[in-house]
Amino acid sequence: MRAEVALVLKGVDYEKVPQDLSNKSELLLNSNPVYRKVPVLLHNGKAVCESGIIVEYVDEAWPSADGDNLLPADAYGRAMARFWADFVDKKVFDALLGTLKASKGTEEEKAAAEENAVAVMSTLEEALMKGKGGEGPFFGGARMGLVDVMLVPLLVWLPAFEELAQLSLPWANKLPRLEAWFAASKAHPSTAVLPEPPKVSEFAIKVFLPRFAN
Amino acid sequence: MRAEVALVLKGVDYEKVPQDLSNKSELLLNSNPVYRKVPVLLHNGKAVCESGIIVEYVDEAWPSADGDNLLPADAYGRAMARFWADFVDKKVFDALLGTLKASKGTEEEKAAAEENAVAVMSTLEEALMKGKGGEGPFFGGARMGLVDVMLVPLLVWLPAFEELAQLSLPWANKLPRLEAWFAASKAHPSTAVLPEPPKVSEFAIKVFLPRFAN
Repeated sequence: MRAEVALVLKGVDYEKVPQDLSNKSELLLNSNPVYRKVPVLLHNGKAVCESGIIVEYVDEAWPSADGDNLLPADAYGRAMARFWADFVDKKVFDALLGTLKASKGTEEEKAAAEENAVAVMSTLEEALMKGKGGEGPFFGGARMGLVDVMLVPLLVWLPAFEELAQLSLPWANKLPRLEAWFAASKAHPSTAVLPEPPKVSEFAIKVFLPRFAN
Repeated sequence: MRAEVALVLKGVDYEKVPQDLSNKSELLLNSNPVYRKVPVLLHNGKAVCESGIIVEYVDEAWPSADGDNLLPADAYGRAMARFWADFVDKKVFDALLGTLKASKGTEEEKAAAEENAVAVMSTLEEALMKGKGGEGPFFGGARMGLVDVMLVPLLVWLPAFEELAQLSLPWANKLPRLEAWFAASKAHPSTAVLPEPPKVSEFAIKVFLPRFAN
């Protein structure tokens, strides 16, 4: 999702090669021998792996004519973008997966997992308030940037996990910036390439739920 | 260790402010409210957190006059450097910590942890063979770069963990490139700022061993 949205944002033509994850292609295994997983970007016969690294590669390999790239031009702005991109990468998906895991557990486990998910989302809310003077709606201000691209899977994960974990995060009232980010990102043309939430739910049911079965 | 070696390599003057990790300073807590941990780089009154992000920041904020920076200039070379830097960050320390944890466990656990550590080191060996045509001794070729900086803690962790976990990784014979990297990095003037292995052992005994006590 991240790699594809980055390519769309930079106006790069690409061909998408879907993978059967239960029967990975030789092309995938040869292109990413270390992790043997998607996504992999093939460009000029060379492979780039790991979604965050692909997004920065796309940004550098296809610089925008108007200088408006996914990462800011100044060193400090770039470091901040990387900090929040890394936070999203390390914390958001795990927090949502934690709610799914806890949905099979005790009430206490459910409450703890939901509290953790809310804490992660609240930290993002603060980042949205501080970023670029808090002008929003995106982390990078008026245009989508690195952090936004790293977070776009939330647009489909969140509805999927909310449904599967029978979870309802305190949303609009408590986290208005994140809600505005969600609406603006969902309406942005670049995210039209994302799969529909029901498809993600189906994947999660097949792949994650069995791991948490009692 | 990484932040400091990067500053030395780029010829930046800095003041080191040590932290008592059992009684963190207000300066640290205010500078890194998200993770509340070291390292933090303060520059022009702004804070940059997370070692890998600090290293890239240092590289960009103080560009070398001769263009020989920690990251290569081309997008693909940069992506590769980031891929291996990320691999080092995610895998190496955990693998060594795993041997320490297993040293308190069964023979089978010890063998599995050692096998995992050897697998991680072997992957680095392959990266050293492929990087920049395998000219070595560093990941970036003749000069230290991003991946080397990310890996320098190994110079003190490895002896410390080998001693604590009573571990002896198959070294010189099987992983000659990594051994050459180790010798060249240890001899490099920039790594003179690293602490001595006994100090790291002491820290590991105090912080990690109690967690693994039976």
